[in-house]
Amino acid sequence: MKYAFAKRVRHLQSSAVRDILKVVNQGNIISFAGGLPDDGLFPAKAIEDAFSRAFSKGNKALQYGETEGYRPLREVILERMAEKDITGFTADHVLMTTGSQQAIDLFSRVLISPGDVILTEEPTYLAALQVFQSYEATIIPVKCDEDGMIMSDLLSKIKLYKPKIMYVVPTFSNPAGRVWTLERRKELIKLIHKHHVLVFEDDPYGDIQFTNEGYTPIAALDDGSHVLYTSTFSKTAVPALRTGWIVGPYQVIRMMAQAKQANDLHSNSLAHQALYELCRHFDLDGHIQSIRELYAHRKDVMVESLSAAKKSGIITFEEPKGGMFLWLEASANVNTQALLPRAIQKGMAYVPGAPFYAGEPKQNTLRLNFTHATDEEIVKGMQALLTMFQEVEEETSLIK
Amino acid sequence: MKYAFAKRVRHLQSSAVRDILKVVNQGNIISFAGGLPDDGLFPAKAIEDAFSRAFSKGNKALQYGETEGYRPLREVILERMAEKDITGFTADHVLMTTGSQQAIDLFSRVLISPGDVILTEEPTYLAALQVFQSYEATIIPVKCDEDGMIMSDLLSKIKLYKPKIMYVVPTFSNPAGRVWTLERRKELIKLIHKHHVLVFEDDPYGDIQFTNEGYTPIAALDDGSHVLYTSTFSKTAVPALRTGWIVGPYQVIRMMAQAKQANDLHSNSLAHQALYELCRHFDLDGHIQSIRELYAHRKDVMVESLSAAKKSGIITFEEPKGGMFLWLEASANVNTQALLPRAIQKGMAYVPGAPFYAGEPKQNTLRLNFTHATDEEIVKGMQALLTMFQEVEEETSLIK
Repeated sequence: MKYAFAKRVRHLQSSAVRDILKVVNQGNIISFAGGLPDDGLFPAKAIEDAFSRAFSKGNKALQYGETEGYRPLREVILERMAEKDITGFTADHVLMTTGSQQAIDLFSRVLISPGDVILTEEPTYLAALQVFQSYEATIIPVKCDEDGMIMSDLLSKIKLYKPKIMYVVPTFSNPAGRVWTLERRKELIKLIHKHHVLVFEDDPYGDIQFTNEGYTPIAALDDGSHVLYTSTFSKTAVPALRTGWIVGPYQVIRMMAQAKQANDLHSNSLAHQALYELCRHFDLDGHIQSIRELYAHRKDVMVESLSAAKKSGIITFEEPKGGMFLWLEASANVNTQALLPRAIQKGMAYVPGAPFYAGEPKQNTLRLNFTHATDEEIVKGMQALLTMFQEVEEETSLIK
Repeated sequence: MKYAFAKRVRHLQSSAVRDILKVVNQGNIISFAGGLPDDGLFPAKAIEDAFSRAFSKGNKALQYGETEGYRPLREVILERMAEKDITGFTADHVLMTTGSQQAIDLFSRVLISPGDVILTEEPTYLAALQVFQSYEATIIPVKCDEDGMIMSDLLSKIKLYKPKIMYVVPTFSNPAGRVWTLERRKELIKLIHKHHVLVFEDDPYGDIQFTNEGYTPIAALDDGSHVLYTSTFSKTAVPALRTGWIVGPYQVIRMMAQAKQANDLHSNSLAHQALYELCRHFDLDGHIQSIRELYAHRKDVMVESLSAAKKSGIITFEEPKGGMFLWLEASANVNTQALLPRAIQKGMAYVPGAPFYAGEPKQNTLRLNFTHATDEEIVKGMQALLTMFQEVEEETSLIK
């Protein structure tokens, strides 16, 4: 039978890159492609204890839950938000989601009609781009530099496209690992208030910082009307519980909750109860500190492995101040998508940069995760990558 | 700020009924409105043991999982499907979802373009109707009798609308509690093969049967090409784990998995691992037998409480052979939506029938859940309901 799929699925087709990387996960390749936390860090004992506490509450813990999520967990999240200066909200302004991915999806579902413009950074999180495309949005990328979005370009695009929404990852962006300056964040708030643009601030990595600078979320600079802030327990506690949240203006959260009712009724409420117990009885912030230390070390190993090549000009990159990724730019003649099968032959894998672009991609970019491989694997994997680049250089000069 | 929501949200607005019922959950009203299983039946100890077994597998159990869901659980589900004569599939034909609600949503997302026709029973599951509406489908209800869909009406609507999809709940339908005869099921298979219609068979209640008749799922009569079958652990194990599944043609499952990647990446994989352990180390079928016995008893209590009124002709209903609901029709002059606040004043709540209709609603219908209230509560609640109907009769004759 020929299945007549909806028009929107043309944006859901599996990419060639994803198909290649699926093979990688089954082989003996060192993968820097995924966004996996280090397994060894998971506080397994504390999570098992948290489940025991949840079970001790009796059978009610196993019944259907509220669409918005377990209310005591939403209260805990408000406390954690307040530590980031995101205040003025109640539990009614918080929606629990199945990972922060579902927050991106529900936001898009209630705000994007086909053809609507959404502004994004360039490059930006590829799975967010896929969601926006699946709702048939017109994605307009805004130019960025090492301080964040370039405000003059943002302003001209706001004037030109009159967008009602934008999507940003201002702290340790995915894939570029960048951090917006406070000044840019403040300028953004002014602009969006003046031009009535609703901002989705995606902050899965904000807690994973390697310095003590402390970054102010854009939501903390807002008055509660123009910014939705989302984050997740996947990077700080465990991914398997698939628990994220979004906090923001009541009307938007309310509409997203109604969309969630159609989507899946509610997320796993036993996981919510366990995470509530975890937050109450486990030093999550102390745990986050140990995550920061390990990931900062891994980042150092990767940067060190790449430093000679950077000096010699074969590659360029900015050293990440946090997050899970290093964004690398190779020589202009390198096509990282075309080279991926060759990298895999050499025993390592990455994500080519092109899918992170809504506009014209830089084909010589790639994203490297530094949180899942061991020190030895990082050294070995970077050697393989650089060897390949070296070979490509030589082959190119032979052709010339 | 005025939030400019997408066009599709007009179908997501909270209904007056839902708002009324939300209040009920906070008060001392006996609610027959929800579809809640009995808390007392949850195999809490077995589930806690299942989680312990999952935790004993080590930290890998807490990492990100596959979008399709934990593979060993998909294998277990295949075994359970085979017991229902649903065969010929592999784990690649199974997608784990966040409740069967997400299966309905993902199916709609990949198959419904605005304006596409979907055929349904009349009445049918209201949350499915909401999903279809949110994707801007044109819903065409097909006439039903106590044996299922009426095939002559189905055929004429297939010819008229040339639909590519239909949605059915053939075993203990929600809300009507009906069961299709085997003959109707076989006729459906012939029709959909001839006219190339893809069927979504929703079977959350199939295991909750009160007789030993044994009903053949429509999917068991198909060759694996035209029917997707979905069910859930929410009614047989526990709702809080939000775990459902869908099995069917590879191409459709594959596309739904890609939509799920955009929607939420994957469901809670720790819950999948625990449910796998539950199925392997707990007598789930024995447990289902005890659920059947309790719910059959509760159904008897409800039927008995309503039998005098049925005899006297104030109300009519078919006795459910399974599932969780009794579908009641009151006198023609009764409007169950208008009367809901009055029922609540009398201490009980139900879901008015109108929202279950895609076409012209029967305003004198309502749905009663019999699985969550105690025997005493059922007796008391039905008395309150019948007293109200009696009062309405008297008021009407006074007006005459």
